[in-house]
Amino acid sequence: MKVGILGATGAVGQKFIRLLQDHPWFSISALGASERSSGKKYSEAANWIEDITLPSKVAAMTVRNCDPAEFSDVDFVFSGLDSSVAGEIEGAFARAGIPVISNAKNYRMDDTVPLLVPEINPEQIELIKKQEFTKDGSGWIVTNPNCVAVPLSMALKPLHDAFGVDTVILTTMQAISGAGYPGVASLDILGNVVPFISGEEPKIGPETRKLLSAEFDLQATATRVPTLNGHMLSATIKFKKKPADLEEVRDAYSNWHNPISALNLPFSPSEVYKIHEKDTYPQPRLHADQEGGMQLHIGRLRMAEVFDISLMAMAHNTIRGAAGGAILNAELLHKKGYLG
Amino acid sequence: MKVGILGATGAVGQKFIRLLQDHPWFSISALGASERSSGKKYSEAANWIEDITLPSKVAAMTVRNCDPAEFSDVDFVFSGLDSSVAGEIEGAFARAGIPVISNAKNYRMDDTVPLLVPEINPEQIELIKKQEFTKDGSGWIVTNPNCVAVPLSMALKPLHDAFGVDTVILTTMQAISGAGYPGVASLDILGNVVPFISGEEPKIGPETRKLLSAEFDLQATATRVPTLNGHMLSATIKFKKKPADLEEVRDAYSNWHNPISALNLPFSPSEVYKIHEKDTYPQPRLHADQEGGMQLHIGRLRMAEVFDISLMAMAHNTIRGAAGGAILNAELLHKKGYLG
Amino acid sequence: MKVGILGATGAVGQKFIRLLQDHPWFSISALGASERSSGKKYSEAANWIEDITLPSKVAAMTVRNCDPAEFSDVDFVFSGLDSSVAGEIEGAFARAGIPVISNAKNYRMDDTVPLLVPEINPEQIELIKKQEFTKDGSGWIVTNPNCVAVPLSMALKPLHDAFGVDTVILTTMQAISGAGYPGVASLDILGNVVPFISGEEPKIGPETRKLLSAEFDLQATATRVPTLNGHMLSATIKFKKKPADLEEVRDAYSNWHNPISALNLPFSPSEVYKIHEKDTYPQPRLHADQEGGMQLHIGRLRMAEVFDISLMAMAHNTIRGAAGGAILNAELLHKKGYLG
Amino acid sequence: MKVGILGATGAVGQKFIRLLQDHPWFSISALGASERSSGKKYSEAANWIEDITLPSKVAAMTVRNCDPAEFSDVDFVFSGLDSSVAGEIEGAFARAGIPVISNAKNYRMDDTVPLLVPEINPEQIELIKKQEFTKDGSGWIVTNPNCVAVPLSMALKPLHDAFGVDTVILTTMQAISGAGYPGVASLDILGNVVPFISGEEPKIGPETRKLLSAEFDLQATATRVPTLNGHMLSATIKFKKKPADLEEVRDAYSNWHNPISALNLPFSPSEVYKIHEKDTYPQPRLHADQEGGMQLHIGRLRMAEVFDISLMAMAHNTIRGAAGGAILNAELLHKKGYLG
Repeated sequence: MKVGILGATGAVGQKFIRLLQDHPWFSISALGASERSSGKKYSEAANWIEDITLPSKVAAMTVRNCDPAEFSDVDFVFSGLDSSVAGEIEGAFARAGIPVISNAKNYRMDDTVPLLVPEINPEQIELIKKQEFTKDGSGWIVTNPNCVAVPLSMALKPLHDAFGVDTVILTTMQAISGAGYPGVASLDILGNVVPFISGEEPKIGPETRKLLSAEFDLQATATRVPTLNGHMLSATIKFKKKPADLEEVRDAYSNWHNPISALNLPFSPSEVYKIHEKDTYPQPRLHADQEGGMQLHIGRLRMAEVFDISLMAMAHNTIRGAAGGAILNAELLHKKGYLG
Repeated sequence: MKVGILGATGAVGQKFIRLLQDHPWFSISALGASERSSGKKYSEAANWIEDITLPSKVAAMTVRNCDPAEFSDVDFVFSGLDSSVAGEIEGAFARAGIPVISNAKNYRMDDTVPLLVPEINPEQIELIKKQEFTKDGSGWIVTNPNCVAVPLSMALKPLHDAFGVDTVILTTMQAISGAGYPGVASLDILGNVVPFISGEEPKIGPETRKLLSAEFDLQATATRVPTLNGHMLSATIKFKKKPADLEEVRDAYSNWHNPISALNLPFSPSEVYKIHEKDTYPQPRLHADQEGGMQLHIGRLRMAEVFDISLMAMAHNTIRGAAGGAILNAELLHKKGYLG
Repeated sequence: MKVGILGATGAVGQKFIRLLQDHPWFSISALGASERSSGKKYSEAANWIEDITLPSKVAAMTVRNCDPAEFSDVDFVFSGLDSSVAGEIEGAFARAGIPVISNAKNYRMDDTVPLLVPEINPEQIELIKKQEFTKDGSGWIVTNPNCVAVPLSMALKPLHDAFGVDTVILTTMQAISGAGYPGVASLDILGNVVPFISGEEPKIGPETRKLLSAEFDLQATATRVPTLNGHMLSATIKFKKKPADLEEVRDAYSNWHNPISALNLPFSPSEVYKIHEKDTYPQPRLHADQEGGMQLHIGRLRMAEVFDISLMAMAHNTIRGAAGGAILNAELLHKKGYLG
Repeated sequence: MKVGILGATGAVGQKFIRLLQDHPWFSISALGASERSSGKKYSEAANWIEDITLPSKVAAMTVRNCDPAEFSDVDFVFSGLDSSVAGEIEGAFARAGIPVISNAKNYRMDDTVPLLVPEINPEQIELIKKQEFTKDGSGWIVTNPNCVAVPLSMALKPLHDAFGVDTVILTTMQAISGAGYPGVASLDILGNVVPFISGEEPKIGPETRKLLSAEFDLQATATRVPTLNGHMLSATIKFKKKPADLEEVRDAYSNWHNPISALNLPFSPSEVYKIHEKDTYPQPRLHADQEGGMQLHIGRLRMAEVFDISLMAMAHNTIRGAAGGAILNAELLHKKGYLG
């Protein structure tokens, strides 16, 4: 299938390019960016920041405007657009009959737009049928969640199924790549912690509740730390039904059934959950890239003196929490027949 | 007064030397360390890691064994000893009639040993009279708390007086200097977070409860981050009496009376609490050294969706949380007549 | 004396404010910045990045345009302006009869403008008399060198006097603060080295030659490393007259006479050169702030297999290499009667 | 072929395990370490620091003593032993008829021991025949160079062939992984540069001269910087025959013929030299892992004001500069019939 990438010169756009370079189903055939970049060769328009060589085929492509009229040759688009423009542009693409697999926040909480993590709520894709961007249903939008909501919802899902999540108190330690490029100034973060990330905390509760189709209370503190990739989450959780002991909690993970395992999607990790036994694990530097950056890492699982349990969860924020998650969404949609 | 420093070559010992170099009351006259160092000049025995030049007077001093018989010329000692040896050595000094102002954990939870933060529980020094190290009361031990318990208890004190602390859920982001030298391997922490610090979490609750003379539940997660100095605490707190609004919470801090303000102790910060209004504050790099590293920084003060309030607290871990705190303890004890 | 600061909201401007807050001779009475900031209170216009609290007197000052007409109440100005605007604005101030002590590069290589490091070439201030900004000589410009040329010229000065510098091969490891704020993106420098700094290398040779009034060849490579403050220079040097041994080289430093020592200038370090004997010294983190950041640190002094000697030199780039150096320049000029 | 790994629990040993896990020719069948580890399962003996999961087959293996009698079932061994024990142990293995492919320094400068980088001096393997560890020639030692000598000799080789190297002045910026684990203390290197690495500089000249079979002068300064992997070298070079212009220098690289290209060795990079045109390249974080960490990166190639040219060279220090280089050596030796 021929895919376009909107916001192709940004940090998320670059991650899409990197992750798609050898994809068995999807081939990059169009790149869209702002007016400043359009008309230029991609290698000139983008300040490539990935640690692989820019694929030569992509380097030579001419960047287009993010105008659906210039993307008539693609089957669908991935959007790594900034939220300041994503609302309008993604809507225009959907209305023009071009499906949009988006990483932007703009449509996430829309009632008819799937907020999708395939292992958690694959049934959400049915919502597409309610979208009215086009009369024939050819244009629609599917979103993936915020890079904290992804690991949080994944960490909670088996526990929620077993015990029902009641309350979560969360502190995050988020990597600099989450802010894009140039993003965080080095003077702000080298040897430092910044105890606030603008706009981050208010997304976490609503998105996680939509992902789990559940009501629960969440109090979140989002901080930035000097790590490259991999958001760490420290969570203390109260359930509606208290687990008897740690064994029951572990069983919830080991008994969990991956609803998409039979589909053999290329970006699906062979093991969705990695439960670390070593107290000092998981760590962003050691584990964020494992299983192609698509695995959820859990550690320090323990019964808590307050509430019921505490744990650390970690996932690669720009792969599992952004571009890789969007690609997995597209794979599911393709397998389910939504992408033709 | 003439003071000795036990554990003088270690990280805490070096901090004592640095902080005492221009002290108006206390003059370093003896340095004690392990057998490997004793008999050597301090400049040869210690791998000096402070970012000031080693004071030449100290550099030339000969390191002694940590044996009370070699410290008969001092009025009291500061102890920066490792807990593996502190129990025995500090006890021997106390029994020999030499007061010990200790940073080690060994005697902190002893019923007759003050666990002292002068602004919080100055009345604890009365406990000294119950100690039985010597018949005439000349030898005794006073301790300062763990480097997390210090900022936590300080952050909670005005709130506890106003509302009564009921429950605390805490995640810490602790600086590498807290592990001493060589301490944390750079391969473990450069661009990384380690979600566990051995032995740390179990100290926090008991010490903080002793400091506040209060019963409350605490669930703590202690992590190491690549910062140099300044432990950051992310806390969500439930009170026995719910504050009506954020104004009441702020008032608790502004109405708090510093019980030692009239004493004008040299290491007492002019402003004990710095309440930051900027969302991105406090930060270890910007604020840990302010007011000589003795100030408590609070930020992100807000009403919480779960429990009552959330906040960030930060203090310099090796000054306010260790050597500087011990010096302030000694200043209080001196002013109160305990040090002759 | 009443001083103004041009470019007051930038990184160098903030350093001027910090360093001048308790200055015995100079008092900040005017702050100038771009149109975006003018008219606002300084506390609102600036994103304060220094690790001390913004002095309240400065916080409340209203920022002015960098227009000499708005600075008629000052005795002189410090300029921390960006080079893109410094040429025009500094010239306008000089023509308006307001002396300018500048950190910008624009006038450094002008034949009539002193490029001044007081310990190296105090006689340069005589050049002021040749300047023709005003008929009565009331307006003039004095500059300090680039943050690499400062430590390089200081490291070379005693050696040049003794042996005559013939050739220098230099590799620098420069701190992120040298790029201002926001400056270097954290994604570019966290756990990384960038082997190029735009515009840096071409300044080093010409400025250092002007400072030493000497002709010699220099090949420089300027790199950025993840340090906060303190540029490290690795230099291998050939002299016109080969030193017989390392002792002669050391003697060059110990025999060097500080030409301004008798003036007792407030920002003059008590010891200009700190020659470190320990192989692992100097280090940016340990030594950049010593002597108020005004000291030059030299280490690894050794005879070389190629050329004559190799050494490491290090100085605080935004204090000795920028704002602090400019203040020392102003102190010299004041003492010599140029500032009235 | 069955291979053993000596020093299997150390940093280099772990890298051997990681790199060999899917090797087409070599299969790990024995692990040797110190007495403290021998007899334990590898997963219990080693503190695994690689960012992949420890292969389960290796995890379950029992660690042996580094005694040739316990390694009779292997075809040869890789040695990642510390130099304090490598001399004796490697000699014992060779005498027992077990070939040793070593990363240790002990035998590198021995006249009969190949110091081998396959692309540079493959003919060195002939030296093996002169070794007298065994009468039948079954036991011998081959070494790879120090992690700085590898990228330096590779950067120089095409230039030396074309112009003859006369003199090199070098400053290195070396990654923390070069010091092994625990290696560099985080307090020493976080936000810092250490201008000395014990024992490093004296190896660089002799090893590089042996690798190139050339006589030339070298002055080196080795520093440690807070990067994870990838040693950066800043070199200024004088040739016996001055290149006319930069074009001639570039031609030296493009005309260079890889003497082992026809052998299609698994660890041979498809492109040995990556010549970066972008001024800010190469960078450790972006480029060290490219081509499996086996590529040599060159950047900032330019004519110099002093000597002839300057350049930056960079390679992954623990792959190309250690374990990966040793594996490539073994591949060459196998292809040439030395390993049976």
